[in-house]
Amino acid sequence: MSPAHSSHSFAVPDFDRTHRKGVPEVILADRKTVEQSIAIARAFLERTGRAILSRVGPELEAQLRREFSESEMEWSPLPRAAVLRRPGFTPPQTGGRVGVVTAGTSDVPIAEEAALLCREMGCTVYTAYDVGVAGLHRLFEPLSAMLDQHEVDVLVVVAGMDGALPSVVSGLVDVPVIGLPTSVGYGLGGGGTAALYSMLQTCAPGLSVVNIDNGIGAGAVAGLIANRAAAARAAGGNR
Amino acid sequence: MSPAHSSHSFAVPDFDRTHRKGVPEVILADRKTVEQSIAIARAFLERTGRAILSRVGPELEAQLRREFSESEMEWSPLPRAAVLRRPGFTPPQTGGRVGVVTAGTSDVPIAEEAALLCREMGCTVYTAYDVGVAGLHRLFEPLSAMLDQHEVDVLVVVAGMDGALPSVVSGLVDVPVIGLPTSVGYGLGGGGTAALYSMLQTCAPGLSVVNIDNGIGAGAVAGLIANRAAAARAAGGNR
Amino acid sequence: MSPAHSSHSFAVPDFDRTHRKGVPEVILADRKTVEQSIAIARAFLERTGRAILSRVGPELEAQLRREFSESEMEWSPLPRAAVLRRPGFTPPQTGGRVGVVTAGTSDVPIAEEAALLCREMGCTVYTAYDVGVAGLHRLFEPLSAMLDQHEVDVLVVVAGMDGALPSVVSGLVDVPVIGLPTSVGYGLGGGGTAALYSMLQTCAPGLSVVNIDNGIGAGAVAGLIANRAAAARAAGGNR
Amino acid sequence: MSPAHSSHSFAVPDFDRTHRKGVPEVILADRKTVEQSIAIARAFLERTGRAILSRVGPELEAQLRREFSESEMEWSPLPRAAVLRRPGFTPPQTGGRVGVVTAGTSDVPIAEEAALLCREMGCTVYTAYDVGVAGLHRLFEPLSAMLDQHEVDVLVVVAGMDGALPSVVSGLVDVPVIGLPTSVGYGLGGGGTAALYSMLQTCAPGLSVVNIDNGIGAGAVAGLIANRAAAARAAGGNR
Amino acid sequence: MSPAHSSHSFAVPDFDRTHRKGVPEVILADRKTVEQSIAIARAFLERTGRAILSRVGPELEAQLRREFSESEMEWSPLPRAAVLRRPGFTPPQTGGRVGVVTAGTSDVPIAEEAALLCREMGCTVYTAYDVGVAGLHRLFEPLSAMLDQHEVDVLVVVAGMDGALPSVVSGLVDVPVIGLPTSVGYGLGGGGTAALYSMLQTCAPGLSVVNIDNGIGAGAVAGLIANRAAAARAAGGNR
Amino acid sequence: MSPAHSSHSFAVPDFDRTHRKGVPEVILADRKTVEQSIAIARAFLERTGRAILSRVGPELEAQLRREFSESEMEWSPLPRAAVLRRPGFTPPQTGGRVGVVTAGTSDVPIAEEAALLCREMGCTVYTAYDVGVAGLHRLFEPLSAMLDQHEVDVLVVVAGMDGALPSVVSGLVDVPVIGLPTSVGYGLGGGGTAALYSMLQTCAPGLSVVNIDNGIGAGAVAGLIANRAAAARAAGGNR
Amino acid sequence: MSPAHSSHSFAVPDFDRTHRKGVPEVILADRKTVEQSIAIARAFLERTGRAILSRVGPELEAQLRREFSESEMEWSPLPRAAVLRRPGFTPPQTGGRVGVVTAGTSDVPIAEEAALLCREMGCTVYTAYDVGVAGLHRLFEPLSAMLDQHEVDVLVVVAGMDGALPSVVSGLVDVPVIGLPTSVGYGLGGGGTAALYSMLQTCAPGLSVVNIDNGIGAGAVAGLIANRAAAARAAGGNR
Amino acid sequence: MSPAHSSHSFAVPDFDRTHRKGVPEVILADRKTVEQSIAIARAFLERTGRAILSRVGPELEAQLRREFSESEMEWSPLPRAAVLRRPGFTPPQTGGRVGVVTAGTSDVPIAEEAALLCREMGCTVYTAYDVGVAGLHRLFEPLSAMLDQHEVDVLVVVAGMDGALPSVVSGLVDVPVIGLPTSVGYGLGGGGTAALYSMLQTCAPGLSVVNIDNGIGAGAVAGLIANRAAAARAAGGNR
Repeated sequence: MSPAHSSHSFAVPDFDRTHRKGVPEVILADRKTVEQSIAIARAFLERTGRAILSRVGPELEAQLRREFSESEMEWSPLPRAAVLRRPGFTPPQTGGRVGVVTAGTSDVPIAEEAALLCREMGCTVYTAYDVGVAGLHRLFEPLSAMLDQHEVDVLVVVAGMDGALPSVVSGLVDVPVIGLPTSVGYGLGGGGTAALYSMLQTCAPGLSVVNIDNGIGAGAVAGLIANRAAAARAAGGNR
Repeated sequence: MSPAHSSHSFAVPDFDRTHRKGVPEVILADRKTVEQSIAIARAFLERTGRAILSRVGPELEAQLRREFSESEMEWSPLPRAAVLRRPGFTPPQTGGRVGVVTAGTSDVPIAEEAALLCREMGCTVYTAYDVGVAGLHRLFEPLSAMLDQHEVDVLVVVAGMDGALPSVVSGLVDVPVIGLPTSVGYGLGGGGTAALYSMLQTCAPGLSVVNIDNGIGAGAVAGLIANRAAAARAAGGNR
Repeated sequence: MSPAHSSHSFAVPDFDRTHRKGVPEVILADRKTVEQSIAIARAFLERTGRAILSRVGPELEAQLRREFSESEMEWSPLPRAAVLRRPGFTPPQTGGRVGVVTAGTSDVPIAEEAALLCREMGCTVYTAYDVGVAGLHRLFEPLSAMLDQHEVDVLVVVAGMDGALPSVVSGLVDVPVIGLPTSVGYGLGGGGTAALYSMLQTCAPGLSVVNIDNGIGAGAVAGLIANRAAAARAAGGNR
Repeated sequence: MSPAHSSHSFAVPDFDRTHRKGVPEVILADRKTVEQSIAIARAFLERTGRAILSRVGPELEAQLRREFSESEMEWSPLPRAAVLRRPGFTPPQTGGRVGVVTAGTSDVPIAEEAALLCREMGCTVYTAYDVGVAGLHRLFEPLSAMLDQHEVDVLVVVAGMDGALPSVVSGLVDVPVIGLPTSVGYGLGGGGTAALYSMLQTCAPGLSVVNIDNGIGAGAVAGLIANRAAAARAAGGNR
Repeated sequence: MSPAHSSHSFAVPDFDRTHRKGVPEVILADRKTVEQSIAIARAFLERTGRAILSRVGPELEAQLRREFSESEMEWSPLPRAAVLRRPGFTPPQTGGRVGVVTAGTSDVPIAEEAALLCREMGCTVYTAYDVGVAGLHRLFEPLSAMLDQHEVDVLVVVAGMDGALPSVVSGLVDVPVIGLPTSVGYGLGGGGTAALYSMLQTCAPGLSVVNIDNGIGAGAVAGLIANRAAAARAAGGNR
Repeated sequence: MSPAHSSHSFAVPDFDRTHRKGVPEVILADRKTVEQSIAIARAFLERTGRAILSRVGPELEAQLRREFSESEMEWSPLPRAAVLRRPGFTPPQTGGRVGVVTAGTSDVPIAEEAALLCREMGCTVYTAYDVGVAGLHRLFEPLSAMLDQHEVDVLVVVAGMDGALPSVVSGLVDVPVIGLPTSVGYGLGGGGTAALYSMLQTCAPGLSVVNIDNGIGAGAVAGLIANRAAAARAAGGNR
Repeated sequence: MSPAHSSHSFAVPDFDRTHRKGVPEVILADRKTVEQSIAIARAFLERTGRAILSRVGPELEAQLRREFSESEMEWSPLPRAAVLRRPGFTPPQTGGRVGVVTAGTSDVPIAEEAALLCREMGCTVYTAYDVGVAGLHRLFEPLSAMLDQHEVDVLVVVAGMDGALPSVVSGLVDVPVIGLPTSVGYGLGGGGTAALYSMLQTCAPGLSVVNIDNGIGAGAVAGLIANRAAAARAAGGNR
Repeated sequence: MSPAHSSHSFAVPDFDRTHRKGVPEVILADRKTVEQSIAIARAFLERTGRAILSRVGPELEAQLRREFSESEMEWSPLPRAAVLRRPGFTPPQTGGRVGVVTAGTSDVPIAEEAALLCREMGCTVYTAYDVGVAGLHRLFEPLSAMLDQHEVDVLVVVAGMDGALPSVVSGLVDVPVIGLPTSVGYGLGGGGTAALYSMLQTCAPGLSVVNIDNGIGAGAVAGLIANRAAAARAAGGNR
């Protein structure tokens, strides 16, 4: 058997798995020309009925509105992200539940990237922004609501200068926490380094991290965790 | 509701939650004297019926055997970890399912720390060690078994010099992957730095990481994810 | 006038100031031979009636007990520090009030270095150790006592892995906070780097820091701040 | 007393304490849009009678003058900072005394940020700029005046390329010194790194530091120290 | 004999060797003014019949077309490189065979720099772009073709975020592999650092690396290796 | 077809390729216990007729002599490496030609690792040690001999403190050069960092590098390049 | 005596020494506004008869020509430096002899800064630019001329990518060598880091360094060394 | 002419120059076995009449005394250095004058390495140790003596934690200053990094540096500078 044959046959379950996985690809528009972004978006729209673009500059935003006037475009101003949908496309509702918390207001755009991807993966997302770490009382109420009322499956905690927040939260809750550092900050430890280091050093069990500003990556992990639990809830008792 | 009230009610479920959380504390013996380790182990044993010690030196190992001859001691030689249990203590069986994969044989001790904690959290753990990244064929068969036969809820992928393995695995599977870098390696990028950097840079969705050699931390995250899914399976249909 | 003359005359107010300053010099014994440490200790004892040694190894400890049997020696086991006093030497009581807080138990030896120097500077020191950051409820009660009952003039907050504690405390209190990072920790951000970076990035006003494991330095700053306030209290109304 | 109770009672004086603390918040305008800065400034002005903005670009400066023509606006050209005050607002005079010293002229804008915040905290500020380290004679005279005539409670010493100045000063004086590194410099150790490292390594007792270019942070620490001493002077004899 | 004489006589075999070596010099236009680039290009064209320019900005591109209208200019849009040839100049055909593989599409411009130099050194170049590392099945087929059909002498494997690809390839093939990291990526390990570190840490035998984005350097190494083998094939049997 | 089947069938050409590749595996004994090293050596000896061990401590050396008295053991004292051969095992002679050059004497042990592996791959190795960079005249004569008399296919240039040597050599010769930095050196840029950085920055075409102290890696690359050329020489004219 | 008095009297020999030292101050115009540069230049011109400005932007250049039309202005295009001289000002001729050598053409602007300052200090400067390190024969002839004909007292060797050149030169000559790294280069070790590290690691005796791109600093050191020797030559025999 | 011939003839002036240069080679014994050190020392002793060894361990010290009982051995306890001299060997007296200053007592061993080499190069060395930077008055008197009485040609200023001392000195004196950082220090900027960075950032003209702990290197530079001036003094008036 030729290697080509063997690799082809291997690919079959892989594609199948990618399909089941339900993490849609996100087009990072800040690393592409407007033309490239438009072309890739069109390909996704045609093949899957949906295209997600993040970090969309003003020029591309305008071009998207022109080029895809026949599609539905949902625009998220803070992370400057766009979701294009073929008319009639309805995203799945998985029943997964995700909480997203930020330390400051400047962490919100990255947090919104994570939230957006979770929603496109079918999860319900609950957010609490600017809860700080210096004034912890601002944190307790929304966290209680997320855990006790909404029973989230996972928390994404986003922080730049207050890099301790994910550790603090992880010490308080019984769900997995994804630490998402942002590139806020200056001087020594700036650009998100102090936040990432703090999260990696944490003693609080149940915290794992993604790279600085990787909102999409955090959203993918959170969505997978929540959807795994949701699928078990749906299928529960049978297995 | 006053903030005080809210934080009051929060504090109560906090202790409660820690209990339900089921991440037992692990005594890192390499940062303590033999006497301190013995004393803390005794306290845990008395209060909770179990004490878990990792990175146990030969002297402490001997002392543990002497001091706790009345308890059951399970000794794991590779991570040099000990679990002491009061006679009659039976750990819970949650139904959570965790897969642990290592790139090389030198990554195994750290991997075994993660596996041990998952087991003490009530999960069933499936392992595949030394699957490499240079010879990917060694990876496919055990990975298939974990996913299709055992239906693991989460994978811990452990790698030092072959830091790409977690990314490669994350691109192949539909469950969350915890990247666990180990302090193998030398020269530039040695001590686990290259592995951790690679995992943070990954394009494969669904991968989050813990710090270098943090087997206990990776085990806690994996256990929480698996137990969340297991609880949903158990309760499924009802909520 | 010759430069020598000029530099000599300059030295006068300088020595005077050093005297008023009241920060006694501390002999860091881990950078000296046993013989050197003994000799310098003897010189201080003779000139000032007191000698303070930190990071004293077992061999030097034994030798100090032998050599200075005629002096009073106060031994602090955790930071392995010794204070030798000429019989009849009584340290000043300034009325300065210092609080020292640690995140974990492994931070205590460094914290005790700071506390010891503050005491030798004449301050009263209040301590609260192992208050954590993951379980913040452990922090609130001792902090309240320090601020409301003891009315400390300054806080030294010591943390290695929970590097966020100084920021959290600084957001809660109205006195200056000295952040003292310790060389606990491992992997990326280990050796106290993550803790120091976190403290430097803080948004909480009123926090300044010293270098990793610099307990003596933090004690000197805290003692100066507290003694400045104490002197004002004593002299108050007159100036 | 229950932990909840303790945290409840703590929360109340926390707000109270923040009020008494007297560190007004500063709006860092270089991280915000003109609109955001205007909106936050308006909120502060209405709630507290004062708004402080630092790192104000020319566009925002013009907009501030237009929008707040009914308020008094004090403009500091070097740090490009603005203080808006409701007519009739009079800042407190605490009696705190702060000295601010810079090594070079390029360190002045950051020094002025610290001085401005200290003044808004009610302190009297004495400055000596461009005193160098290579020509130490330029330092001695103004330092003598600050210490002996004005009896400052604390010194902020600002340095970029001459990172040794805070250590030199700290060796000469008997008040606490805040080292404030600036992002001057080039090549290896540039951007303020050499200055910060030097300050962290210092042997001179009584020096603590803040992050590179953190003039506001240094001002807050200095203001707290000076105001603590000033309050003791005012209340002195009674406690 | 004077040193000058000796150094002159040494130069003779050196120039001779440079000639035989057949690595043409490439003008890196992004470090030069338009005028400098034009002048150097003209000198090469006159002396050797060919000039190769890489990283050519739009202004220089236009100027090259105007200035060298009498020469043949081959324009490569992706790496923005130009090869000018005197009419009649025919590059050598050595029979060397080079494969160039990239992980992603953003790695292609740097890969094309390597490919272009190999072609100008007389090699035949086979390319496979965007073969990923997460979906390894995309890699196997083109790699088989390169090795079994085209029998390449050496592989250049180009990767930024998927820095593991060179290691994976090196584990699969029996020819030397040149790892070429690209400055793609963000956060910790960004700018190509993670990719370079991964390649340096590899366990797969037969992999050596060049610096980040050094497409020209990788091309020179690959061309030398391939041409050495090609020369042996041509001369084979005789020695 | 099941994934297991597919991965098995893929393995066939891979093993085949590994066989043809002719890079024997080297047991790095400094990362293994004596028992592990003995066991792995025995396995290799039985399966392939040869076992290569590097970085062999005195205890393992003695044990190897005892355990494998029936095999031939070739001991290299400088890199402390051992080659065990089943009686009758004759390594191949490929005709590949490799030159190994070191800057200093302290670079020799790492150089000898590279040379040893090349020899076990069937190459003839020519060495010139301690040729310096400060006294370049010591370099020219042996380099001339390697290139003109022995016609080496590739050069490995080993340097720690004189990190420039590989660049200097690469500017003089017409064969590919492998730069091998060693962990000699101190202070800033010590431990081989300056050497590796210098090699990565080189302007001289034809130089690629391996990680610090990676003698085995450099030997594998050099052996593959030389054997590729040798195979072409042997087969030459036919393809 | 007051400290002020003492510091004043100290200043006297200091100013005297600065005068004798003969290192004129250079205005680094890239860190100042056009207005500031003009003002400082005017002050120097009036006080000392000369003003030296480096890193002069086009706008400042035009303004200098306008403002100081009555003075002589010597313009150096490559380092963009200007020397203004009061009519009749004649710089001293000390007899000091300095050689300046660069590895590449991109190192020339920084080299010219060093040369300019040496000339203004009264030295004669001999230059040899673009002597490379890969082709060492280009180095030997000009170096011989500098040493044997011009008998320079000191050499400044300037290199960015070819960071080894100062080590190579220092191994060949009997005068002190100042290594001056430039911020040429890319990727790992870029921005002059590899060059500076290489120079710090050198084994060649007689080499000291200044920071990256610090042409003025290198010139000052070289000028002091040369003028010391020149003064001795002038006074020779008498002491 | 063959390359070998050419390189031989080049060597002639080089050896000649090395001879005139008068920087004797120093055997760094901490990187060699006792046997190697003895052998190299014997070779130097025989060829040049003198052997200099630094960083001599106790075992080698004893062995040197045994092996070279027929030679004169001068032992320097602090830097643990030995100078062996053939009976009758008299080192040259050049008339060069070098000052060596240290900030602290822990800097003395490295300073003594520099002083020793200067003495072996024929210079007279004046030392002032532990002059501090915090108490500058300790510096002025010995510095005045060195400059005004002894008229040193060059200063070596040695500092670890007080890394500013070389800058301070360089601002006060009119001779070239060699900054020699030592590996004293801890935490961030420890191991000599802060000291080296500070020296590289200095604004004081006339300071160049060598690597951390490179006492021999600093001595060689200082010796060359001093001997250049001394030679001019001796020959003065004639050239």
